[in-house]
Amino acid sequence: MDYRFLGKDITYDTLKAMSPQEREVLCSELRDKILKTVSANGGHLASNLGAVELTVALLSVFDYKQDKIIFDVGHQAYSYKLLTGRYDRFDTLRQKDGISGFPRISESPYDAFDTGHSSTSISAAMGIARARDLEGKKNYVVAVIGDGALTGGLAYEAINDLGHSKTKMLIILNDNEMSIDKNVGGLSKYLSKLRISSGYLSAKRTTESFLQKLGFFGRVLIKIILAIKDFFRFLLYRKKPSMFEDLGLVYYGPVDGHNTNDLIKAFDAVKDIRGPVLIHVLTKKGKGYGPAEQNPSDYHGVGPFDLETGVSSGKYCYTTVFANTITELAVKNPKIVAISAAMTLGTGLDNFQMKFPSRFFDCGIAEEHSVTMAGGLAISGFIPVVAIYSSFLQRAYDEMITDCCFMNSHVVFAIDRAGFVGNDGHTHHGLLDISYLNSMVNMTVFSPRDYSDLKNCLRYAIENVNGPVAVRYPRGASPFEAEGPLYEDVSDCVRPHVIEDYGNDFAIVSTGKISEEASKAVKLLKEQGISGKHINVSMIKPVPAKEILDLIKGIKHVYSIEEGILSGGFGEALERELQMLRFESDVTVFGVKDPIVRAMSQQDQIKFCGLDGDSVAASIRTSIS
Amino acid sequence: MDYRFLGKDITYDTLKAMSPQEREVLCSELRDKILKTVSANGGHLASNLGAVELTVALLSVFDYKQDKIIFDVGHQAYSYKLLTGRYDRFDTLRQKDGISGFPRISESPYDAFDTGHSSTSISAAMGIARARDLEGKKNYVVAVIGDGALTGGLAYEAINDLGHSKTKMLIILNDNEMSIDKNVGGLSKYLSKLRISSGYLSAKRTTESFLQKLGFFGRVLIKIILAIKDFFRFLLYRKKPSMFEDLGLVYYGPVDGHNTNDLIKAFDAVKDIRGPVLIHVLTKKGKGYGPAEQNPSDYHGVGPFDLETGVSSGKYCYTTVFANTITELAVKNPKIVAISAAMTLGTGLDNFQMKFPSRFFDCGIAEEHSVTMAGGLAISGFIPVVAIYSSFLQRAYDEMITDCCFMNSHVVFAIDRAGFVGNDGHTHHGLLDISYLNSMVNMTVFSPRDYSDLKNCLRYAIENVNGPVAVRYPRGASPFEAEGPLYEDVSDCVRPHVIEDYGNDFAIVSTGKISEEASKAVKLLKEQGISGKHINVSMIKPVPAKEILDLIKGIKHVYSIEEGILSGGFGEALERELQMLRFESDVTVFGVKDPIVRAMSQQDQIKFCGLDGDSVAASIRTSIS
Repeated sequence: MDYRFLGKDITYDTLKAMSPQEREVLCSELRDKILKTVSANGGHLASNLGAVELTVALLSVFDYKQDKIIFDVGHQAYSYKLLTGRYDRFDTLRQKDGISGFPRISESPYDAFDTGHSSTSISAAMGIARARDLEGKKNYVVAVIGDGALTGGLAYEAINDLGHSKTKMLIILNDNEMSIDKNVGGLSKYLSKLRISSGYLSAKRTTESFLQKLGFFGRVLIKIILAIKDFFRFLLYRKKPSMFEDLGLVYYGPVDGHNTNDLIKAFDAVKDIRGPVLIHVLTKKGKGYGPAEQNPSDYHGVGPFDLETGVSSGKYCYTTVFANTITELAVKNPKIVAISAAMTLGTGLDNFQMKFPSRFFDCGIAEEHSVTMAGGLAISGFIPVVAIYSSFLQRAYDEMITDCCFMNSHVVFAIDRAGFVGNDGHTHHGLLDISYLNSMVNMTVFSPRDYSDLKNCLRYAIENVNGPVAVRYPRGASPFEAEGPLYEDVSDCVRPHVIEDYGNDFAIVSTGKISEEASKAVKLLKEQGISGKHINVSMIKPVPAKEILDLIKGIKHVYSIEEGILSGGFGEALERELQMLRFESDVTVFGVKDPIVRAMSQQDQIKFCGLDGDSVAASIRTSIS
Repeated sequence: MDYRFLGKDITYDTLKAMSPQEREVLCSELRDKILKTVSANGGHLASNLGAVELTVALLSVFDYKQDKIIFDVGHQAYSYKLLTGRYDRFDTLRQKDGISGFPRISESPYDAFDTGHSSTSISAAMGIARARDLEGKKNYVVAVIGDGALTGGLAYEAINDLGHSKTKMLIILNDNEMSIDKNVGGLSKYLSKLRISSGYLSAKRTTESFLQKLGFFGRVLIKIILAIKDFFRFLLYRKKPSMFEDLGLVYYGPVDGHNTNDLIKAFDAVKDIRGPVLIHVLTKKGKGYGPAEQNPSDYHGVGPFDLETGVSSGKYCYTTVFANTITELAVKNPKIVAISAAMTLGTGLDNFQMKFPSRFFDCGIAEEHSVTMAGGLAISGFIPVVAIYSSFLQRAYDEMITDCCFMNSHVVFAIDRAGFVGNDGHTHHGLLDISYLNSMVNMTVFSPRDYSDLKNCLRYAIENVNGPVAVRYPRGASPFEAEGPLYEDVSDCVRPHVIEDYGNDFAIVSTGKISEEASKAVKLLKEQGISGKHINVSMIKPVPAKEILDLIKGIKHVYSIEEGILSGGFGEALERELQMLRFESDVTVFGVKDPIVRAMSQQDQIKFCGLDGDSVAASIRTSIS
C-alpha cells in the first residue's frame, strides 16, 4: 500500500484542513501500518485499531505541539505516535533501541506523560491542567481512558477531585463495550448531536445564568428543566450517565468513535467549556481487522503473527502450568476460590472460571479490591488464589499488608510475569516483587524454577502454608523442559536443591528461572578450571538458611542470583540470615541495579543487566582471582 | 454516673427488646463512658461520639454473634466494643496489653475484620458475604463506612464489583457532613420514611414484577414511575443519590443517624432485600460533647485531655517544623505547591493552605490520586510537596514508582509519622517506608534527626535534588531540643555527622530520631569501658558510604540502627554499599524484626523491639566480647 499522507509532515493545520474523505484515507493508512508492524513485531493490536479515528479526530481539534494528551495505559497510542513524528522509526516498535509500545516522555516532546499501568491518566492530566492554570496558560489537557481503566479506583479518586475542583480539562471515555441498545441507537445519536451542538450549550448556560437571577422560582425552573432532560435520558439509556454529572462533570455522548466527523464536532463543541467535561465515545476493539474484531481478547497483546491466518492460540508456559494446577487442586478442595483483576485470560483462569463459575471472581481492573476481598474470603475459611501480574500487584501493596498479612490470612498470591517481561518494557517488569514481599510480615514466598517446581510450590502453598503466601513465576516458557523434575516429594519445595556440584571453589545460590544462567556460568567456569557448586531454592521467605549453610560450609566465595532488584531482595535476605547463623563469608549478590530496562527480548534484558551466564562467570572469575 | 445497662450482659435480645427511652439511656451511658475513657487515655473522640445511636440501632437489628459488621477505618467502633463484651476492659483502651482503638480479630470473636486504613470495609464485607453465599449460610454482612472513606478508590472498586455481582449485603454510609439543606429537611425525612417502610418496598417490587409481564408498555411505565421518583428526588436533594443506583445498588435515605427509632426502622425494612443496599445515614461528629461538636477536627484523634476545658491546641513537634519550613520556602519559590490526602490539619498544611490557597490541593482520602497528580504537576515544572503519613503512603506504592520515579520527576514526599506511632498500634506504624523507598529507582531519601536537620533536609530536597525525594520524620516532639544544631550549612545534610566519638572499639551508624537511643547506648558502654563512635546520617539513599567508610575504617564491630523493618532497610543498604567498597567488617543491623507492635507508648515500643539504649548496649557488649 502506498501512503498518500502517512510519512509526510503532518501537523495540526494539515489535519484540520482535511476533508472527511481524506481523513478516511489517513485512517486506513494508519490501520495498514499498525497491522503490518504489529504482525511483524508483536504488540497491542485490538486497542490500537479501535482508536484510529479517535486519534485523528483529536489531533484535528487539538494541537499536539501545545496541547497535552494523556493516553491511559498507553496501549492505544500507536496512531498518535505515527502522527507525531515517529512514522520513520515505527518499524522499530518494541524492539531493542526502538520506540516504545507506550507513551514515553524520553522518546518525544509530544508524549505528555509516561503510562503503562491502568487508570492514571485523569490524575496526571489534572496535575498538568492545574500547573497550566497556575501559570496562566491556555492550552488544552485531554485524558483518553477506556471503560476498563475506569473501573480502577485511582480514576474514581481523580474524578471525585476533578468534579469538586472544576479544573478545565477533557476526559475522553473510550468505551468499546457497545453497552447502548441497538433499538434506541438512532435516537440516542440524534439526542447526542443535539446535546453537543455548541448552540445548545450556550443556550443552556445563558438560560441557567438568567434563571439564577430569578431567585427561588428560577432555581426551581432550572431543576424542572434538568429533570425533564434526565427523564428523557432515563427513557433512552439503559445506563444513565448521571453518575458523572453527580460527581460534577459535564457529560456528553455517546458519540460514534469511528466517525471522525461526529468526533470532531463533539470535541469542537465542548473544548471551550470552562470546567471538566467527559465525552463518551463508542469504539470497537480490533476495528478494521476481521479476526481482531471477532476475538478482541486474543488480539489484545500479541506476539508476531501471520496477517492472513491470524494469531495462533497460546503456547504452553508457566501460566498454563499455574492454570492447570489450580484447577486440579480446586476439584479436590471446595474451599479454593480464584480471583482475577480483569485478567482472566492473561492469567489463565478462564478454565477455572468455566469449571467453577461460582468460585471465580473477576473484580475488574481493581487490584486493591481484589486483595482486600480475598482477605474477607480468607477470614471466612476459604482459600482465595489471587492471580495478578507482578507489576500490577504493586497497586495492592498496602492491602496485602494490612488486609492479609497483619491478620495472617491464608491468601495465595499467584504472581505472574515475575522478572523481565521483554518487549513491553520497564513499566511492566516484575522486578520489585521479591523486595516488597520480603518486607511483608507473615508472608511466605516461593520463586519456583521450572514447571514441576511451580506445580509443587502451588500445591504446598495451598495445602501446607497457613498464612499469606506468594508464588511468583515468569512470563513465557520454561527452558528446563528436557530435564526431569528436580525433586519428587512436594514438601521438598521448601529445601535447597543442588543443581551442579563440581567443587568448593565457590557456590552460587539461585532462585527461579534465572538459575538457567547460573548453570551456564558454573559450567563455563568448570571448563576454565574453577569448580563450583550451584544451589537452587524455591522457597525464598523464609530463606532455608540452615540447610543452605550445610551445603556451603567452608566455601569462601558465595554468590546469589535473582531476577529482581537488589534492595530487599533474595540475596540480601540470604546474607542477613547466613550472618545470623555466623557464616563468615559475604554473599555477593547478582541482581538488577536499575529496573528501568527498556524494551528488548527477555534474554537481552538479562544480558543488559549482566545476569547472563557469560557475564556472571566473568564476574565470579574476577572476584575469585 | 451509675450505669443502668452498661456493664451488664448485653445481647441481641436485650437490645431488641429495649424501648426507645431505654435506648436513649444506653446511648447516654455509652457517651459518658467514651468521654471518660478518651479524656483519660486519648483516642478517637468525635467519630465515636457520632456513631453511638448508629451502633445501638445496628445491634438491635443484627445479631453480633452471627452477623458480621465491618467498621471502615475502625475509629468509630468504641460503642461496638462496649456492647460486645469489652466493657470491663475498656479502661485499658489503647494502653499496653489493653484493648485496641480499632477492631481486632485477635481481641474478640465479634470483630469481623481488622481495620485501621481507610476504605477497606466494602471489599472485606464482600469477601465475607461471598464466603457466606458459597457456604449457603444466611447471616447478614454489614459495612459501616464514612463519607470521607468513600472518596478512596478502593471503596469505589468494591461498589463497582458489588453492583455488578449483586451480592446481598448492607452498606451504611455514615455521612457526617450534613450535606442536605435544612429547608427541605422535613420533607426529605418524610420521603425517606416512605421509601424505607417495608410496605413501600414490597409494593414497589410487586408492581415491578407485574409490569415486567406487560412487555414493552409495562417497561415504559416502570421507567416513567422511576423517572418521576427521580424527579422528586432531584427537586429535594442537592446531591442526587442516583450515583449509587447507577452502580447497581439500592439506595435508601437519608436517615437521621441520631434517632434509633428511624435507624431501626430503616435497617429492618431493607435487611431482607436480596441484593446490595446502601443506607445513607446522617450523623454529627462529636455529638453530645459541645467542644467536639463545634470543632470535630480538633477532636478526631486526641491525647488525654480535661473534660471541662477540652483539648489544648497542638504542641510544637516535627510536623510543626515541616509546616513552617514549607510555608517559608513557598514564599520565595512560587513553583512550590502542596498536596494533602484529607489530612490538612494532621500534616500541618493548614497554614500553607491559608497563605497560598491556589497552590494547595486537598485530594480527599486518595493517596494514589494525590501522588499521580503530583507527578503531573512535576512534569509541568512545579515542585509538588505531597504530605502523607508513612503508613497511608503505602497505598501509593505503585504510583510513586510508575508516575514519579520512572520519569525522575521532582516530587517531594513529606512522610510524617515515620517510625513508631504509639497508641494507634501496628496498623499505623511507619516502619516500612525506608524499605519501600530504598526499592524505588531515582528516589533520594532523607531521615532527619532533629528539627534543624529536618529543616535543612526539606530545603535541600526542594532546592538541590532534581528527582523524586522523600523526607521522613517521626510523630511527636524532638528529644534534642536542648542541643544546638548538628551542622550549620544546609548542604551538609548529605554528609554523616559524628555525634559521639569515644574510641574505635565499635561504631554505630544511626538515622533519624532513634539516634537518641544510639547515643544512650554509646554513653552507657563508655561507662563500662567500651569506647565507641556514633555516627548519624540524614541522607540514607544514596547512602554516603565513602564518607562513612572514612570515619569507620579499621573498626571491626560496626552496627546500624533505624526505626524500621530489617528487610530492605537502611542497615542492609549500608552493608551492601560498604561491601561494594570492600569494607571488611559485617554490619550488624538493629531494626524491627516483626512490625506487628501493638498499642503502647512510642518509648515502650522502642523497648519492646530491643531498640532502646539499654538493650542496644547489652547486645553490642555481648557481640564484642
